[in-house]
Amino acid sequence: MIIVIGGGPAGRIGAMRLAEGGSEVRLIERRKIGGQCLHDRCMMVCALNDVARLLDCARVMRDLGIVDTVPAVSYPTVKRRMREIQEKLGLVLDAETRRAGVEVVYGAEGRVSGDRVYIDDEEVRADAVLAATGSRAAIPDDIPGVDLAGVYTYQTLHAMGDLPRRMAIIGGGVVAAEFAHIFQSFGSEVDIVTRRGLLPLLDAKMRSAVMRHDLAGVSIHEETAVASIEGGARVRSVLLGSGEEIEADAVLLATGLVPRSESLQGLSKRPDGAVIVDRHMRTSVARIYAAGDVIGPPYLTPAARREGVVAAENILGHPTVMDYAGIPQTMNLRYDYAIATIGTDDGSVSLSAPAPAGPGSFWDVARGWSGVAQIRVNPETGRLVSAAAGVPGAPAIISYIGYLMKRGVTVSDFEDLVEVHPSTDGIYGLARYAAGLLRKKKSEPPG
Amino acid sequence: MIIVIGGGPAGRIGAMRLAEGGSEVRLIERRKIGGQCLHDRCMMVCALNDVARLLDCARVMRDLGIVDTVPAVSYPTVKRRMREIQEKLGLVLDAETRRAGVEVVYGAEGRVSGDRVYIDDEEVRADAVLAATGSRAAIPDDIPGVDLAGVYTYQTLHAMGDLPRRMAIIGGGVVAAEFAHIFQSFGSEVDIVTRRGLLPLLDAKMRSAVMRHDLAGVSIHEETAVASIEGGARVRSVLLGSGEEIEADAVLLATGLVPRSESLQGLSKRPDGAVIVDRHMRTSVARIYAAGDVIGPPYLTPAARREGVVAAENILGHPTVMDYAGIPQTMNLRYDYAIATIGTDDGSVSLSAPAPAGPGSFWDVARGWSGVAQIRVNPETGRLVSAAAGVPGAPAIISYIGYLMKRGVTVSDFEDLVEVHPSTDGIYGLARYAAGLLRKKKSEPPG
Repeated sequence: MIIVIGGGPAGRIGAMRLAEGGSEVRLIERRKIGGQCLHDRCMMVCALNDVARLLDCARVMRDLGIVDTVPAVSYPTVKRRMREIQEKLGLVLDAETRRAGVEVVYGAEGRVSGDRVYIDDEEVRADAVLAATGSRAAIPDDIPGVDLAGVYTYQTLHAMGDLPRRMAIIGGGVVAAEFAHIFQSFGSEVDIVTRRGLLPLLDAKMRSAVMRHDLAGVSIHEETAVASIEGGARVRSVLLGSGEEIEADAVLLATGLVPRSESLQGLSKRPDGAVIVDRHMRTSVARIYAAGDVIGPPYLTPAARREGVVAAENILGHPTVMDYAGIPQTMNLRYDYAIATIGTDDGSVSLSAPAPAGPGSFWDVARGWSGVAQIRVNPETGRLVSAAAGVPGAPAIISYIGYLMKRGVTVSDFEDLVEVHPSTDGIYGLARYAAGLLRKKKSEPPG
Repeated sequence: MIIVIGGGPAGRIGAMRLAEGGSEVRLIERRKIGGQCLHDRCMMVCALNDVARLLDCARVMRDLGIVDTVPAVSYPTVKRRMREIQEKLGLVLDAETRRAGVEVVYGAEGRVSGDRVYIDDEEVRADAVLAATGSRAAIPDDIPGVDLAGVYTYQTLHAMGDLPRRMAIIGGGVVAAEFAHIFQSFGSEVDIVTRRGLLPLLDAKMRSAVMRHDLAGVSIHEETAVASIEGGARVRSVLLGSGEEIEADAVLLATGLVPRSESLQGLSKRPDGAVIVDRHMRTSVARIYAAGDVIGPPYLTPAARREGVVAAENILGHPTVMDYAGIPQTMNLRYDYAIATIGTDDGSVSLSAPAPAGPGSFWDVARGWSGVAQIRVNPETGRLVSAAAGVPGAPAIISYIGYLMKRGVTVSDFEDLVEVHPSTDGIYGLARYAAGLLRKKKSEPPG
């Protein structure tokens, strides 16, 4: 019997792989299958963003005179309908998991203490354990007022009854940007307050695109500490380190994640609680494996799924290692942003260009913007070392290009790609352009 | 000097490649750069479909109570704004083409007569010619009334002043389906009349998805001939072979394309006028090459572009052949549909599954539909021989999978793909599922 603790992406996919491999598998899920991915994060952003984009596009078309009005959104109904669909998707995941041969146990807590395993208070015998207990929203301990009514994290946001008139978002990462775009589109006035710069991992071009096109209208306070969150019965404002006070009737803490590992004792952990694993997903205790958010960043569903599979394969006796190369990073705003990078290549050359207008961006051409594409190329080998796009549909494009990069794709290989048209994909065009430059360079006499 | 006749995708991309290769290139364009792709087909469908989808999504969300209204569309404004953007994109293409070193001549007609080349009436010396004169909408010669006012093709549709109350579309291919979806979404009542079945190239599952989800509400008359189009000062109805009469205040002829090769004389052609070329894009006359719609099907921009490049490479003295394997076929309706197939594989096994809900399809889950994914796999080798999807964003996914299929991708290779999430891409999940089945099959003792 293999015990899997946690029914999020890592645990669920790992459990299914174990069952497929012939193991008897029991999956212990405290609450609902699908984890934060389905209930609090990916799918929630997807749901809200689909509504936000409808409103964004309606605004563009209304401004062009193409349509007569921009619909108004009912936030309480959005929340209620979203929950209904999340429940429905949960049933699909539950059925899929059981069909794969996994026994699913709800409402119990799986725990580990050294090499002993418990379900609630009962010790159980297990040949191996896959611990995938996930993460939770981090709450800063140095900001007075985080416990006021009206202060939320992405995990408690469902308690927010209706749209705030003014929302302050504390944090400068992807979650902050995604919710800022959503609530601004829904009609709230939004401030972002971030200790460092906003989206520091984006390069200057992408960052500028986000600021000008996706977060236009959001008030962004960078390099700014929050002194306190002020209020009485509920939140009223955010006091900045500079002394400035920002009015807010809701505050969203988008200040990162922490692994949820309290139920896993006797394993080596990092100071933030992340369970330490090797590339086989083995913890410091024999036969105990861990995967997903509980082992720390990158906190991404596809990485978690893959970690779950890697753990399962090793438990099944098929030595397999986790490879983090080429994992696409994505962000869903007015457009989608995605980037994948292979290794580090200091000699590489960067190229970027406006993306072609296509489905989802045609009408934006009227305001002179249809997104951006970027590549980095090794000029000696022609190998693509990085690709990024900020266009509708960027994630799928970059996912496959990330995979091709892992396989060593060169810019001249893109000659053989038969693209589709119309498309927002600017990568293959850039790659072909780069291939042309390299051909020219080769045919020139060395200088 | 190389003369390129026609500034559509084949001629323009071919001309740019020739200039990049060091040739002196003159591109002769009768009207506007970008060809039908920009002015009458791909980008027009893209523009109209972006509006149609906004309305479709607004309807779904209004029915769920999420938004309060569905905007009304002003068709005359759509047309005017679309033209403005097409002109703008034309300027971009013009600049890009000149920047590549191509001399662009507008308003003249390039002609070929055997091995002689003319610009208007003046004979010019050319080292080679790339003839890319395109195609036009086919007008059936066996239907009385096709010349009535109110009868359009996709090329003359811009003359339609406002939305018809009832539109009849004659034809059963992609163009018929795309415009039916668009005008039905805009508020017209739409009939499709087709001699054979609608979208006969789709398999049963995809076809059923299109009929139930994308063209619900369109009246579809299959296996039905049109006897005549009736009217006086303008069209009034379409009389079917069955005797039934369909009221219509506009008729769209979506009855295929014919190559536009009247200006190319002395070359071998097929009965429909398609210029015959070999895999190097060489016509029957030395130094005269042809590419794009003028050589006949598949009448797709990406194929035309590639044919232009192949012709250019051969003119430059780099022997290159055209490969039509894995070219994705796409269709843009409420969802996108795309399919790519490699070779024919009679022993292959077909798998299909509902696609995961993701950007653009989340709210459709409420009505139990988020699209479909399909693959065909060779069970001996595990090689993917066909992939298809009907989801938002299908074309980009299938384009890259088509490329991977050309490179011999197997279903177990998809283990190494790091997907993005959330995503509407159901292909990698199906491929991994198929890989699991193959693993099981291998580990079982032969029966």
